[in-house]
Amino acid sequence: MLEKMFYPASVAVIGASQEKGKVGRAVLDNLIDRFKGSIYPINPKAAEIEGIKCYKSVLNVPGEIDLAVIVIPAKLVPQAVKECGEKGIKNLVIISAGFKEVGPEGARLENEVKDIAKNYGIRIVGPNCLGILNTYSGCNASFAKKMPPKGNMSIISQSGALGTAILDWSEMTDIGFANFVSLGNKSDLNEIDFMQAWRDDKETSVILAYLESITDGQRFINMARDVSREKPIIVVKSGRTSAGARAASSHTGSLAGADVAYDSAFAQCGVIRAETVDQFFDLAGGFSAQPIPKGDRVCIVTNAGGPGILATDACEKLGLKLATLATETIDRLKTTLPAAANFYNPVDVLGDASPKLYEFALQTVIADDGVDGVIVLATPQAMTDPVGIAEVIARVRKTTDKPILPSFVGGTEMQSGVDLLRKHKLLNYGDPERAAYTMKTLTKYNNIRNRVYEKPKHFEADRAMVRKVIAEARMAGITVLGLEALPVLEAYGIPTLKYRIVDSADKAVAAAKEFGYPVVMKIVSPQIIHKSDVGGVRVGLDSDEAVVNAYNKMMKDVKAAVPHCRISGVLIQQMATGGKEVILGVNRDPQFGPLIMFGLGGIYVEVLKDVQFRVAPLTEKDALGMIYGIKTHQMLEGVRGEKPADIEKLAEFLERLSQLVTDFPEILELDINPVKVYEKGKGCLALDARMTIS
Amino acid sequence: MLEKMFYPASVAVIGASQEKGKVGRAVLDNLIDRFKGSIYPINPKAAEIEGIKCYKSVLNVPGEIDLAVIVIPAKLVPQAVKECGEKGIKNLVIISAGFKEVGPEGARLENEVKDIAKNYGIRIVGPNCLGILNTYSGCNASFAKKMPPKGNMSIISQSGALGTAILDWSEMTDIGFANFVSLGNKSDLNEIDFMQAWRDDKETSVILAYLESITDGQRFINMARDVSREKPIIVVKSGRTSAGARAASSHTGSLAGADVAYDSAFAQCGVIRAETVDQFFDLAGGFSAQPIPKGDRVCIVTNAGGPGILATDACEKLGLKLATLATETIDRLKTTLPAAANFYNPVDVLGDASPKLYEFALQTVIADDGVDGVIVLATPQAMTDPVGIAEVIARVRKTTDKPILPSFVGGTEMQSGVDLLRKHKLLNYGDPERAAYTMKTLTKYNNIRNRVYEKPKHFEADRAMVRKVIAEARMAGITVLGLEALPVLEAYGIPTLKYRIVDSADKAVAAAKEFGYPVVMKIVSPQIIHKSDVGGVRVGLDSDEAVVNAYNKMMKDVKAAVPHCRISGVLIQQMATGGKEVILGVNRDPQFGPLIMFGLGGIYVEVLKDVQFRVAPLTEKDALGMIYGIKTHQMLEGVRGEKPADIEKLAEFLERLSQLVTDFPEILELDINPVKVYEKGKGCLALDARMTIS
Repeated sequence: MLEKMFYPASVAVIGASQEKGKVGRAVLDNLIDRFKGSIYPINPKAAEIEGIKCYKSVLNVPGEIDLAVIVIPAKLVPQAVKECGEKGIKNLVIISAGFKEVGPEGARLENEVKDIAKNYGIRIVGPNCLGILNTYSGCNASFAKKMPPKGNMSIISQSGALGTAILDWSEMTDIGFANFVSLGNKSDLNEIDFMQAWRDDKETSVILAYLESITDGQRFINMARDVSREKPIIVVKSGRTSAGARAASSHTGSLAGADVAYDSAFAQCGVIRAETVDQFFDLAGGFSAQPIPKGDRVCIVTNAGGPGILATDACEKLGLKLATLATETIDRLKTTLPAAANFYNPVDVLGDASPKLYEFALQTVIADDGVDGVIVLATPQAMTDPVGIAEVIARVRKTTDKPILPSFVGGTEMQSGVDLLRKHKLLNYGDPERAAYTMKTLTKYNNIRNRVYEKPKHFEADRAMVRKVIAEARMAGITVLGLEALPVLEAYGIPTLKYRIVDSADKAVAAAKEFGYPVVMKIVSPQIIHKSDVGGVRVGLDSDEAVVNAYNKMMKDVKAAVPHCRISGVLIQQMATGGKEVILGVNRDPQFGPLIMFGLGGIYVEVLKDVQFRVAPLTEKDALGMIYGIKTHQMLEGVRGEKPADIEKLAEFLERLSQLVTDFPEILELDINPVKVYEKGKGCLALDARMTIS
Repeated sequence: MLEKMFYPASVAVIGASQEKGKVGRAVLDNLIDRFKGSIYPINPKAAEIEGIKCYKSVLNVPGEIDLAVIVIPAKLVPQAVKECGEKGIKNLVIISAGFKEVGPEGARLENEVKDIAKNYGIRIVGPNCLGILNTYSGCNASFAKKMPPKGNMSIISQSGALGTAILDWSEMTDIGFANFVSLGNKSDLNEIDFMQAWRDDKETSVILAYLESITDGQRFINMARDVSREKPIIVVKSGRTSAGARAASSHTGSLAGADVAYDSAFAQCGVIRAETVDQFFDLAGGFSAQPIPKGDRVCIVTNAGGPGILATDACEKLGLKLATLATETIDRLKTTLPAAANFYNPVDVLGDASPKLYEFALQTVIADDGVDGVIVLATPQAMTDPVGIAEVIARVRKTTDKPILPSFVGGTEMQSGVDLLRKHKLLNYGDPERAAYTMKTLTKYNNIRNRVYEKPKHFEADRAMVRKVIAEARMAGITVLGLEALPVLEAYGIPTLKYRIVDSADKAVAAAKEFGYPVVMKIVSPQIIHKSDVGGVRVGLDSDEAVVNAYNKMMKDVKAAVPHCRISGVLIQQMATGGKEVILGVNRDPQFGPLIMFGLGGIYVEVLKDVQFRVAPLTEKDALGMIYGIKTHQMLEGVRGEKPADIEKLAEFLERLSQLVTDFPEILELDINPVKVYEKGKGCLALDARMTIS
C-alpha cells in the first residue's frame, strides 16, 4: 500500500519552474539531485528546464506516471487533478497552499479536489504541505532544502516547519530516515494511512510523528495497537492546552481536560508520547540505533563519582532499577580496575581511566545476566580520551543485544567523542538524565511489544429497553435524564438499587413496604440537578408515618424553592448502607469518542481530582488498570483493617458501561454517581445517574 | 572576605614539578599562562622551572605570599602547612588527595592539617580538589586544563569531574565565569563561605553550585536567605535517592524522604534547584545574560505555527501566562506583518519572514506593557536567515530590560544563528520547552528577590515544664512518650484536650464528672503504640456506670493482649467531637535539623501521603504555606457548604511547635496526631502525641 508513493518509477512535477528560488523549481531540483527514475516537468510555457523536456500537461507525457507533485496556484489545482485522473496517475502530492487553511472558499476548493480524486481513485498527500521523500528511492518530492541521510526511521509531520527542523537535526546528527511525509491539510491521506503503510516497509523500523490532531480516533487506536507491537511509534502531540476550558455540565466532562483522551488513547494502543522536542530527538536517536532491552535493570559505568550519582538519581526517579551486579562480575572487575575504583553499580573506573579500562568494565558488566542495559558516562578529566571511549562504546555495542547509551558530559573537549559516536549513528546524551529517560522508554517499549491484547468482552444486553428510554425522552423533549436513566443501566446488567417513582404518599408507603425499611426519598424532576439544595432528598425513613410526612414536606419545600419546576414524582429507593462510594462516567471526546472515567466519590473526585480515563471499548485489563490507576486505590483494597472491595465486579461494571456507550452513540454524557462497591463477592450498585442524550 | 584567595598578588605552588603531565606542573603552567602577580614554585630538587626560580620551602621565599597551592603527597602536607603558617600565608588550596576520602588514616591526617591551619589562622580549600580559579585576576590555581572565558557567574563544584565538565561547557558556549571553586573534602571552607564571599564580589552576579551535601543546614539557610535576595543562587543537589530507606518509627520520619529537607530548605531560603545538568546549563545561560522579568506574562514570536503551539503548551504547563497583547500592539503588528500572519500571541511572522520583519515584531511586542518577556522561535524554512534573526535578538536584547530567549529549533542550518547568539553570550534553547523553563525560573527569581522575610514570632513558653517532663522521662529510662508528652505542648501554648491519668475506676469517674460526659478512655503504657489494637481505647462513655465498666474491661483486655506490659494507668479525656483531623510532626534531618510536617489526618496521610515539610524555625508565612501547600487544603477551607476551619490558629500551632523543637534539640521526633481543627475562631486541640527524646 502506497508503495508507488515512496518508490515511484516516474514522477511529474506540475508547476515545475524555470526560475530558481520558486517552490516549483526547488521540487524539480530535489528530484534531479537523487532520483533515478523518469522526471517529467509540466510547464506549458517552457520547452525544457535543466535540459529536461517539459510538457504542457501530464496528458502529453508519453510514458506512465507513478506520482505527480502539484505546485501551481490553488485555483488551477482541480483541473490539474482531473488531468492526472485521465492520465491514470494514482498518487498525488499537492504542495500548493490556499485551501482549507485560508477559509470557506479554500475549503470549497479542497472539497472539489477531493471529489475529483475520489472519482479517479487517486490518493492525495496535502494540500498545503512540504511534500514527501524517500531516501532509498532517492525520490525527494518536496521543497525541503536537503535530503536527510538514509536511516531506519520514517516520519510524519503535521507542521512543515517542524518537518524541516527534524530534517535539519537529522543532517547534524547523521541519524537518518527512510520516509518523510509532511501531512498538510490531510484532505485524503493521514497519519493512520502512513503508519499502516510503513508497517510493511522494509526500510522502516521506527515510526515517528509530530501531530496536532488525529483524524479518526477509533481507527487510529485500532491501527496503532497492531503496528506498535511490531514497530515503535513515537509521537509528539502538541496543543495540550490550547483547547482551553470547555463548557461541560457533567463531572466527567469537567475533569476530562482537552488532552486526557490523547494520553489515554496513546497508552492504550502502545504509542509512546514524547513531551518535548528534546525527548523526541533523544528517542529517535535511541530507538534507531539501540536494541530493545529485555528488562529495566541498568548498570552505570562512569569515570567520576558526581555524574554517577546524577545518573543514579535520574534512573531511580524514572523507575529504572539499578542492577545488582553478580559476585562473579564484581570479582572480575576487581582483577583489573584500580583498587580505588568502585566495583558496584555505578561502576567508577576513576578519572584517569583509559579506553581499554572502559572497554574491560563495559564488557564485564554487559556479560552479567542481571544487567539489561548500560549507561556509559564520561567527563573531561586530565587523562580522558573521548574518541577512545566513543570507539569502545561503538565496538561493544555491536557485540551485544543490550542497549549501551553514551552520556558524555561537558563541551568542547568531549566534542571529538560525540563526533565519533555520530559516525556510528549513536546519539550522545549530554545530560545523564536524558540517557536515563531514553533507557526507560526503551524498556517501556519492551512491555508494549510483549503485551497481549484481549478483546473487550461481550455482555448480553436488552438494547430494546435502552432504545425505548431514549425514544421516550426524545418524545418528551428531554435531553438530560436523571433517575429515569437507571433502566438503561439495568438493561446492560448494571445492578441498580431497588426503586420506584411514585406520585402519592400512599404509593410511596407501598413501595417502601415492598423494599423494606429504611428507605430514601428523592425528588424527580429534570429541572432539578442538585436535589439536596432544594429539600429534595431525605434519607433513613424508617416507618410508614415517616414516609408520609417526608413526602408532604418535600412537595412543599421543592415547590417553594423552585416554583415553576415540573415534578415527575418522587423516587423511593432502598437505602444503601455501607460500601465505598465511587463515580463512573462517560464523556464524548471529539477525536476518540466515548471516554470512560473512574474515581472514588465525594472529595476524592471534587478536591483531589483523582480519576482515571480510558477510551472505550474497554478490555478487562483496561478496567482493572483504571481502578488500580487512581492514587487512592488502596481505599478499595482495604486500609486500616477493612475488607477489600469487590474490585472484580467493579471492573465488569466498567466494561458493561463501555459496551453500553459504544452501542449507543446518542448517549453523550453519563455520570453514575454514586456507585456503591461492597466487599469482595458482594458486588456493586448504581444509586443515581445523570445521562445526556443527543 | 577571601579576597586574597581569588585576587592574590603572589602565589606559591608547593610541589611544582619539572615533569610535564604531573599535576604539580599543570598547576604551575596554568598560573604562568595568565597570572600577572608573582609565582613561586616550591620544589627542593629543582633550581628553576620554565625559567622561574624555585625555592626549597615557602620559608625561603623573599616576598609575601598571598596564596599557596599544595600538590604534594598527603603525608607531607602537615609539614608544608606548618611552614605556610610560619611564613604568614593565610590562604591555602590543597589539591593533594589521600585524606578523609581514603579512610580513617586519611581522616586523621586531614584533622592534623586542620588543626595546624587553625592555629595559624589559615583558610583552606580542599584537600582532594581540582583547585580554584578567577578569570579576572588570571589566577588559575587548579589543574583544570583550561581557563573559562570571563563572565559574571561564580561556581562551586563538589565534584571535580562535574567542575571540569562545566568549564568545558563554558568554553563551548562562551558563557563565562568569574570564580570557580572545587570544594574537595571541605575540611575548612565550604559552600557557605564562598556564597557569602561572592555576595560582595563585584564580578559575580550569579552563583552556581553542584553539591552532594551541605555542611551546616541552618547556617546555609540563613546565609542563602540573605544572599539570594541580591544574587540568584542556582544549585544542582545530587544524591536524591541514594540515602534510601531509613529506619523511622514515626509517621513524620517515614514520610520525610532523604531529599525532602533539601527541597524544603531551598524553597525557604530562595535557592533555585535545577533538577538536571541541562537545566543547570540552561539557567546559567539565562541568568548570566538576561534581565529578571517583572512578571510572568510571556509573548512568543515564531516563524511557524507548530513550534508556536509547542512553546504555548510548555508555557502553560509550567505556569507562565500567555500575554494578552494590547489592541494598539495588535494594530501596529497589522500595519507591517503580512495578512496571513497571526497577530495574537503566539505572533506568527510566517515562514518567509525576514530578519527585519522579526525585528519589527519583536520591538512591537516588547513595547507592550502587558509583556514581561519574549521567547523568539525560529525554524529552518526556505527563506530563514538564522544569522539575521540572531542579530536582531542580540540587538533588541540590549534595548530593553525584558528577557528575550532565543529558541532556534533544528540542526545544521540553524547553527550559524546559534553561533552568532553565542558571540553575544546568548544561549540558544534548542527546545522551546527549555526556553519556557528558563523563563519560568527567571520569573521565580523575581519573586525570590522581592520577597520580605519576616522573622519567626516569639511566644511565651514554660520551658521549665518541658525540662521537667524530659528529665522525668530520662530518670525513668523512657525515650518514647505518649500522652505524657501533652504537658510539653501545653507549656508552649498548644491547647490539648482536658485529660487526666488515673489508676482506678473511682478516679476515672471523678475525672469524667469534672470534664463532663461523654468522655474517652485510653490505656497509658509506653510499650503500647497502637492502643486500639489491644482494646485500649473506648469512646463515648456517657455515664458513671459506663466509665466503671469500661475501666474494668480495658484492664482485663489489655493484660490479656499484652501480658507483660507496664500499665501507667488510663487516660480520661474530654471527648472531642466535630472538627477536622490533622497531623503535625517533627523529624530531625541530619543536615538541617528540625523538619516540621503538616497534613490532614487518617487516609490523607497514610494513603495519599499529602503532606508538607518545612525546616524550623517557621515564620507565619511558612506555616500558612504548609497549610495551603497540601493538595487537600480545600478540605480546610470548607467544601460542600462546610464552614472554613480555623487556619489562622492552626498556623500559630505550627509556629509554636517550631519554637518548641528549636528550643529543645533533645526532642528527636514528635507526632501530634490527631489535632482537631475547629471552625474559624474556635481554635485547635491536640488529642494525642508521641515524642521521642534523645
